[in-house]
Amino acid sequence: MNDATANLVNQIFERARFLKLLGIELVSFGEGWCETKVQVRPDLEQQHGFVHAGVLMTLADHTCGAAAATLIDGGRDVITVENKTSFLRPASGSEVSCRAQVLRAGKTLIFVEAEVMTMRNHEPVIAAKASSTLAVISRDRWSA
Amino acid sequence: MNDATANLVNQIFERARFLKLLGIELVSFGEGWCETKVQVRPDLEQQHGFVHAGVLMTLADHTCGAAAATLIDGGRDVITVENKTSFLRPASGSEVSCRAQVLRAGKTLIFVEAEVMTMRNHEPVIAAKASSTLAVISRDRWSA
Amino acid sequence: MNDATANLVNQIFERARFLKLLGIELVSFGEGWCETKVQVRPDLEQQHGFVHAGVLMTLADHTCGAAAATLIDGGRDVITVENKTSFLRPASGSEVSCRAQVLRAGKTLIFVEAEVMTMRNHEPVIAAKASSTLAVISRDRWSA
Amino acid sequence: MNDATANLVNQIFERARFLKLLGIELVSFGEGWCETKVQVRPDLEQQHGFVHAGVLMTLADHTCGAAAATLIDGGRDVITVENKTSFLRPASGSEVSCRAQVLRAGKTLIFVEAEVMTMRNHEPVIAAKASSTLAVISRDRWSA
Repeated sequence: MNDATANLVNQIFERARFLKLLGIELVSFGEGWCETKVQVRPDLEQQHGFVHAGVLMTLADHTCGAAAATLIDGGRDVITVENKTSFLRPASGSEVSCRAQVLRAGKTLIFVEAEVMTMRNHEPVIAAKASSTLAVISRDRWSA
Repeated sequence: MNDATANLVNQIFERARFLKLLGIELVSFGEGWCETKVQVRPDLEQQHGFVHAGVLMTLADHTCGAAAATLIDGGRDVITVENKTSFLRPASGSEVSCRAQVLRAGKTLIFVEAEVMTMRNHEPVIAAKASSTLAVISRDRWSA
Repeated sequence: MNDATANLVNQIFERARFLKLLGIELVSFGEGWCETKVQVRPDLEQQHGFVHAGVLMTLADHTCGAAAATLIDGGRDVITVENKTSFLRPASGSEVSCRAQVLRAGKTLIFVEAEVMTMRNHEPVIAAKASSTLAVISRDRWSA
Repeated sequence: MNDATANLVNQIFERARFLKLLGIELVSFGEGWCETKVQVRPDLEQQHGFVHAGVLMTLADHTCGAAAATLIDGGRDVITVENKTSFLRPASGSEVSCRAQVLRAGKTLIFVEAEVMTMRNHEPVIAAKASSTLAVISRDRWSA
């Protein structure tokens, strides 16, 4: 991965203010994948005391976007076209983590999947599984 | 709609702390539908200055849940099974609103759709469209 | 709609041999929408005697593709990127129909929805609801 | 897996007449997974000469259903609640195969994924990826 691509991935986290509001952190990334995590706080919870589905979808969406970004050249960027997330188990505990993996990167569309993990009885289990399509766009589309 | 059901809908908003973090507000609801809104703030944005996809998905998911809750009896509750959201246009401006409508309410599963609206040249346009499945569960499942 | 576009929509049905195997027929179309139907036969059924989910998804997918095709110029074509279909009720009876409607047509991506209708007690009811993304491609991509 | 469960899986293929129309064959199955294949014929193709998306979705849906059925007891059955399929590459060649894997089996809902494989330059590549939710139902629901 060249520096421009690595910079893009880092910026995707540094410049997204909503990520900071939630406390989502970039853990690591390589060509075609990205890992993130978030510390669970009471204000990330829904009405039953579990992590809100919106937090899990935000984590999955943003990690998918970063995984896609690892495969594009300088001067381009990615945006989410659609995201489907299945909620397999409630997420709770002190931390939720996510790993996204690119399934297929075409010239204009990138297909990515993500698993959101939670701890259950001291074992990691999958809380949510996401499938997302991203579009590759010209970066100057946003600079106007 | 009886009082127990209306109370459930209100609680879905009052007790979900993540909703307060984002500033999502309940606007109104009736049998099979719910409307919400959120004031756009800088800390709800992604790296290009638009509202983060995670905010739109949270808004859609929670509004779908509330629309489903308008159709269930006391002693029961709903949880999201899966959510798919398509991002038709970037969302920006001062406010984003959402309307969710139940497509089909069975005994154990409820299918709901939601439209997320943003303003473009002083006209409301659709920014995102969500399709969600919710499961009807016994309310005491959460009280242990 | 110009002739080239109308021809493309017609060809999408005439040249798709799988459509003939299932007996899916084009009913009508206009700018941004398309309607189709299929006569139910025993060999379109699944193991419980209802119309197979695969028939409903094929009907929805193809009708979405045709609705998208009504909005593109000559020299281009559309392909399905992804399709999500929710199964609201079992489909049975003598005929299943479908109407697809474009939600948003961009330069490179088109978002479409479709409703699949069945008869229940002499009333049309929705059996399935689909949400699909299509990509606009150069038509000569297929001519090699 | 007991005999009643194995019988259910076999019946899911033997009794689904649409499967025979397409030529979809059961290859093998075990607890939580199922493999199938279909020989490509001209009447399974769409207008560009590739396998129709509806064939790939039918293959994925039915294989997901069978994988889910491997995990349920006698007297119960499964039905598809929703299916999302992403189309990563066009499918062509002489045969398309599918493997479905259960992600999570709850008492009332089962989450399954499926990969549809095609051959490209004598190497298997993924043509489509599906994510599906199935509901566990009482088997006598269908016997009336």
